[in-house]
Amino acid sequence: MREFEFIQWIRGQGRFDPAVVAVGPGDDCAVLQVGGEKLLVTTDQVLDGVHFSLAEHGPELAGRKAAARSLSDIAAMAGLPVAMVATVAAPKGFSRSDAEAVYHGLRAAGEGFDCPLVGGDVGAWTEGAGRLQISVTILGRCAGIEPVLRSGAKAGDAVCVTGALGGAWKSQRHLTFTPRVCAARELAGGYPVSAMIDVSDGLAADLGHVVSESGVAAEVDASAVPIHDDARGRDDPLSAAMFDGEDYELLFTLPPEAARGLIVSQPLGVLVTRIGAITEGAGMALIRDGRRERLEPRGWEHRT
Amino acid sequence: MREFEFIQWIRGQGRFDPAVVAVGPGDDCAVLQVGGEKLLVTTDQVLDGVHFSLAEHGPELAGRKAAARSLSDIAAMAGLPVAMVATVAAPKGFSRSDAEAVYHGLRAAGEGFDCPLVGGDVGAWTEGAGRLQISVTILGRCAGIEPVLRSGAKAGDAVCVTGALGGAWKSQRHLTFTPRVCAARELAGGYPVSAMIDVSDGLAADLGHVVSESGVAAEVDASAVPIHDDARGRDDPLSAAMFDGEDYELLFTLPPEAARGLIVSQPLGVLVTRIGAITEGAGMALIRDGRRERLEPRGWEHRT
Repeated sequence: MREFEFIQWIRGQGRFDPAVVAVGPGDDCAVLQVGGEKLLVTTDQVLDGVHFSLAEHGPELAGRKAAARSLSDIAAMAGLPVAMVATVAAPKGFSRSDAEAVYHGLRAAGEGFDCPLVGGDVGAWTEGAGRLQISVTILGRCAGIEPVLRSGAKAGDAVCVTGALGGAWKSQRHLTFTPRVCAARELAGGYPVSAMIDVSDGLAADLGHVVSESGVAAEVDASAVPIHDDARGRDDPLSAAMFDGEDYELLFTLPPEAARGLIVSQPLGVLVTRIGAITEGAGMALIRDGRRERLEPRGWEHRT
Repeated sequence: MREFEFIQWIRGQGRFDPAVVAVGPGDDCAVLQVGGEKLLVTTDQVLDGVHFSLAEHGPELAGRKAAARSLSDIAAMAGLPVAMVATVAAPKGFSRSDAEAVYHGLRAAGEGFDCPLVGGDVGAWTEGAGRLQISVTILGRCAGIEPVLRSGAKAGDAVCVTGALGGAWKSQRHLTFTPRVCAARELAGGYPVSAMIDVSDGLAADLGHVVSESGVAAEVDASAVPIHDDARGRDDPLSAAMFDGEDYELLFTLPPEAARGLIVSQPLGVLVTRIGAITEGAGMALIRDGRRERLEPRGWEHRT
């Protein structure tokens, strides 16, 4: 079972009241209509042995990553975080100070964004088998900026990305990254961004989501992809940047003239690079050394 | 480590902006100020081997219970559910149809309350050790009814409970109960309810929360406690009703004259019983056969 297929199945099940649910499952956040304002909601989880290693990284970084992942989803819709709630499933022998460390990690991630932890639950596995699992739900406000969906990319748009990609797992920066909340607000507030997503599964996989949701195609210029220093020593740094994931950078599309202005002035406090273009059709291509290769939307994906 | 002590610790850490966070951790839900309306948020989890048995009960009832527990928290504040999000941590070998069953269970719990599943994440444990864990976050609206907190009980108030208590675990009704959302709305909308909580940890433990949050004492009339048929065959049915938990009934306080009206007219579609009174001081007493015993706020509690 692939996670993305399952989400597609869930989407097929739903009949939502549009007066309440403006955007349902399948984007970075759901969008609800509450009290005359659009409210963003996103939930995500981290599992010991999958997204972090308790033995290696400890409980505080686990908590920090759990919250930062959901903050990154709020960023991907250009939202402003309001508050978080969390559940912690604790392994046998998890101490009070371990629980406090998780809490400190959650809080550290939210602190820079005025996003407090307002509720939660701590449960304990009864048998030795259970491992640490943390779920975080974050609510966000739109606060004057319309949520940016995955589905708005148009043929002719430039494809851009913040920061640099690849090697996040090995360097452990997936545990300590700062979600691009502020850059996303500036972007969506000041530029005609047509689609946005955060790079969690990997550039190819996440651009694949944008392309399929928008009903368009994309081509990526291999020489333009910003490769992170963490991936430089690797056999194939470009593949690391395309497929590693866990970068939590913003991948977005906008008209080419707006992209030019953005890239010349670099106003976001983070490098913005144009890596390709949206075209008509379906699927993705990688342009490398003048040759055109098919680009598969694969990447790092949870499997069951 | 006791869960309740940990929540107390978290509450000591927080400094919330009251313009955003009207009620922080420690009640059934947090209350946020969003877009001119008060928004309820609650999160809870179920663990295989703690709150259900995957082998015995299957994935659909696990999902149903996960959502129903959080709906019961919304009920405890007299809120109207709006939408839910969920994360599922799946054990090795969990199939697509197992995941669909969890989804159907979540949806079945929310369906009667127009509370759709609008987002989520499915993750997979990589090793055989991980077990099924489901976290559900539910958002609720106040919709004209002020949230009822645990902290409003006053000396002289009657203590009442809906339904009947005890034996929920053994009979498995903890897997199939209907959260008291509608009764709670009618109660708080039509009667001067001063404090409310849902009975999840057990009558004694949950009344203990009301008493300590409100800064009052309580006495419970043993002969008045409504004992569920599921607890009748037991050696000590009263203890089952007092301490078993997992009943998901409403425990609430209100002035005695209002309680009389409620009990005479029984307007909620569920039995309401007066089981005691709030008094001045601290702690709880059980009045049994004319004798006064100290009542400890113990019950079913997660431990780590």
